[in-house]
Amino acid sequence: MHIDTMETTALVRAEADLEQRYAALQAEGLDLDLTRGKPAGDQLVLSAALDGSLDGDYRTENGTDTRGYGGSDGIAEARRLGAAWLELAPEELLIGGNSSLTLMYLYLLGAHRFGLDGPRSAWADGPAAARFLCPVPGYDRHFSICEDLGIEMIPVPMTGEGPDMDRVEALVSGDPGVRGMWCVPRYSNPTGETYSADTVRRIAALGRIAAPGFRVMWDNAYAVHRLGGETPAPENVMTHCRAAGTEDSVVQFASTSKVTFAGAGISFFGGSRRNVDWFRARLSVMTIGPDKVNQLRHVRLLPDMDAVHSHMERHAGLLRPKFDCVRRRLEEGLGNRGIGRWTDPGGGYFVSFWSRPGLAKETVRLASEAGVRLTPAGAAFPYGEDPEDSHIRLAPSFPPLAEVDRAMEVFVTCVELAAVRSIRRSRET
Amino acid sequence: MHIDTMETTALVRAEADLEQRYAALQAEGLDLDLTRGKPAGDQLVLSAALDGSLDGDYRTENGTDTRGYGGSDGIAEARRLGAAWLELAPEELLIGGNSSLTLMYLYLLGAHRFGLDGPRSAWADGPAAARFLCPVPGYDRHFSICEDLGIEMIPVPMTGEGPDMDRVEALVSGDPGVRGMWCVPRYSNPTGETYSADTVRRIAALGRIAAPGFRVMWDNAYAVHRLGGETPAPENVMTHCRAAGTEDSVVQFASTSKVTFAGAGISFFGGSRRNVDWFRARLSVMTIGPDKVNQLRHVRLLPDMDAVHSHMERHAGLLRPKFDCVRRRLEEGLGNRGIGRWTDPGGGYFVSFWSRPGLAKETVRLASEAGVRLTPAGAAFPYGEDPEDSHIRLAPSFPPLAEVDRAMEVFVTCVELAAVRSIRRSRET
Repeated sequence: MHIDTMETTALVRAEADLEQRYAALQAEGLDLDLTRGKPAGDQLVLSAALDGSLDGDYRTENGTDTRGYGGSDGIAEARRLGAAWLELAPEELLIGGNSSLTLMYLYLLGAHRFGLDGPRSAWADGPAAARFLCPVPGYDRHFSICEDLGIEMIPVPMTGEGPDMDRVEALVSGDPGVRGMWCVPRYSNPTGETYSADTVRRIAALGRIAAPGFRVMWDNAYAVHRLGGETPAPENVMTHCRAAGTEDSVVQFASTSKVTFAGAGISFFGGSRRNVDWFRARLSVMTIGPDKVNQLRHVRLLPDMDAVHSHMERHAGLLRPKFDCVRRRLEEGLGNRGIGRWTDPGGGYFVSFWSRPGLAKETVRLASEAGVRLTPAGAAFPYGEDPEDSHIRLAPSFPPLAEVDRAMEVFVTCVELAAVRSIRRSRET
Repeated sequence: MHIDTMETTALVRAEADLEQRYAALQAEGLDLDLTRGKPAGDQLVLSAALDGSLDGDYRTENGTDTRGYGGSDGIAEARRLGAAWLELAPEELLIGGNSSLTLMYLYLLGAHRFGLDGPRSAWADGPAAARFLCPVPGYDRHFSICEDLGIEMIPVPMTGEGPDMDRVEALVSGDPGVRGMWCVPRYSNPTGETYSADTVRRIAALGRIAAPGFRVMWDNAYAVHRLGGETPAPENVMTHCRAAGTEDSVVQFASTSKVTFAGAGISFFGGSRRNVDWFRARLSVMTIGPDKVNQLRHVRLLPDMDAVHSHMERHAGLLRPKFDCVRRRLEEGLGNRGIGRWTDPGGGYFVSFWSRPGLAKETVRLASEAGVRLTPAGAAFPYGEDPEDSHIRLAPSFPPLAEVDRAMEVFVTCVELAAVRSIRRSRET
């Protein structure tokens, strides 16, 4: 029954019932965690062949000994794999260490403090304070990078087909301080949506209306992370950039963190030749080169995209029951009751949940006090501030299925309890 | 015969003879490389057990699954190893990725642009332009970091027992812009010298006379890289710091790059708890954590310093003949002739050679035109400028012994030719 149509007596009864259920859950002393998008142990086993896969053969196809220094571009095989992954040419790729986040940080650091086109082009030294568009809800670690660098963040709402492009275009063309934008084009963290063809085309064209040195940080973290269903891949942004003459305006990132070993994968940077040359020169000041042995391990396990896709099918087989469980718990507990809405993602690592306005923090607090840790409410917004206090990110990948189920039972109870309490109180006044 | 005492006729004869030998060497079309301190293939084989050493067991001693995200400090076993390596407590260690240079860059970036003690403490925003003391000859990649960050470099001569400490103390106490100093305390790159007890004690005391936030970048890159002979290890700098109350003023770096795989090792950061906390917070903006699987591989191969030292003995066995060859070629070709002087290092990866003033560039050019690549003359000095144009760094580790011998034959010929030409010409005028 829809909560707003419930009689007050029924509401009071429901509240008492929920308080009891909540107390009973609290008494169990649970310790469950839905905070981060981490592959579970059974997923890590899928890449067991990584270690030892080299079998004493450390040479690349062109004879490079991967154990030595150097090779700032990455080995040819890994560049080819990254190129297929991001739909670019191998020369448009650089291969990094275990963290694409590090590549993003260093790229933005370089643009902001050192200049994409000589020291006088540094965003930090421009006439206006540097600002970045941040589609929300978004990825907290993207926002932390901006905060650290002193780049002001402007939230832009997501629409279900990517960011609100009318708003994006107005901001980009009207404000020379806007230097770039975060994007997670496929199975976006945390809403799970994939950018539509129109969104991709319009993003590729931003370079024509933006200030010089404008950059889209295209974090394709979930490029191959399909869970099932029929979500088509987003269009190739670089194809649109070439058509618009904006090749330098989009730089791309991806990694194998949620493909092989979360903390021991390889990362990809992709962009125009000019961006690649610039970034290689930046990186060469701070490293003699990335870990090429680990690159070779990765291409031995995953030589091409066919191998990647069938590998990811096995991941999906392990993840799907957990996402199904989340959906079932939400539908059964909260469906059609006006207590919240949520996403049903075709891929990625998250379910987004929106409580009634003003109840996200309270819901997260209730869950925490019943032993279920959730990502802090507001984390998916710049500066941790969700103006509606409504969004909660659920990350069901890591715990075993039974724990996901238990945690979702608690979550649903907390959502309902917070909502019922709030409505009942509002009727008192 | 000493070259200055040679009669002019003998000198002319010697020159003709050298020109002939040089032309003959040129005609051979050699392609030899003494540019960088890289382990050779036979050294890399010593660590063959690294890959596959895990045998499916990815857990640390305290049960952490190294394949997962996180663990910004590094695994306990690796911190313990790093602590023994740098003579610190495990809590004073952070474990990084494959490049200690990256750690150095990020530490200095943080101090210079972001502040060691809040944003207002950034060196870049201080009243005086930030300056760094650079013992010379030194490591070119250290200098590149300063140049990139915009930190002005002040050269300080090395003495055979480390930097000239009278000069260092005068600069540090007299100039509030001096924010730190590079040090390679053992088998210094490229002079091979090890800091004396007095030098270490005085460096540890610099924090008492320096501007706030002064930092010694203690790059102990060759801490375990003994070639033979009886060079004692430098004293424990942190012990002296504790006595002087300057624990925060020295931060230490090391790596396994020249111990296991040059491009696929692990790196160590060491410092006071305060430095560790500050650096961990800086790194957490740009990475979820280092590659812990590779850390585990390393501690399985090298569980303690006994294992490290016997491993390094095997390296020394392979390197010693190459260094012996360099010494023999220099002694036989140039000994007691006033044409140059050189080091006989007890460890590390380099031999330093000083030509007669004004002849280093010419010697490197001659060698290059005879097919022997050397590190560019001046590379061991800030901004690539050797005021004497005298120092040349020789790196004999990488080529096979026969090639080292050939390259040194060419080198000695070029040194002699440059010297004889120069003296003969000076007598003409």
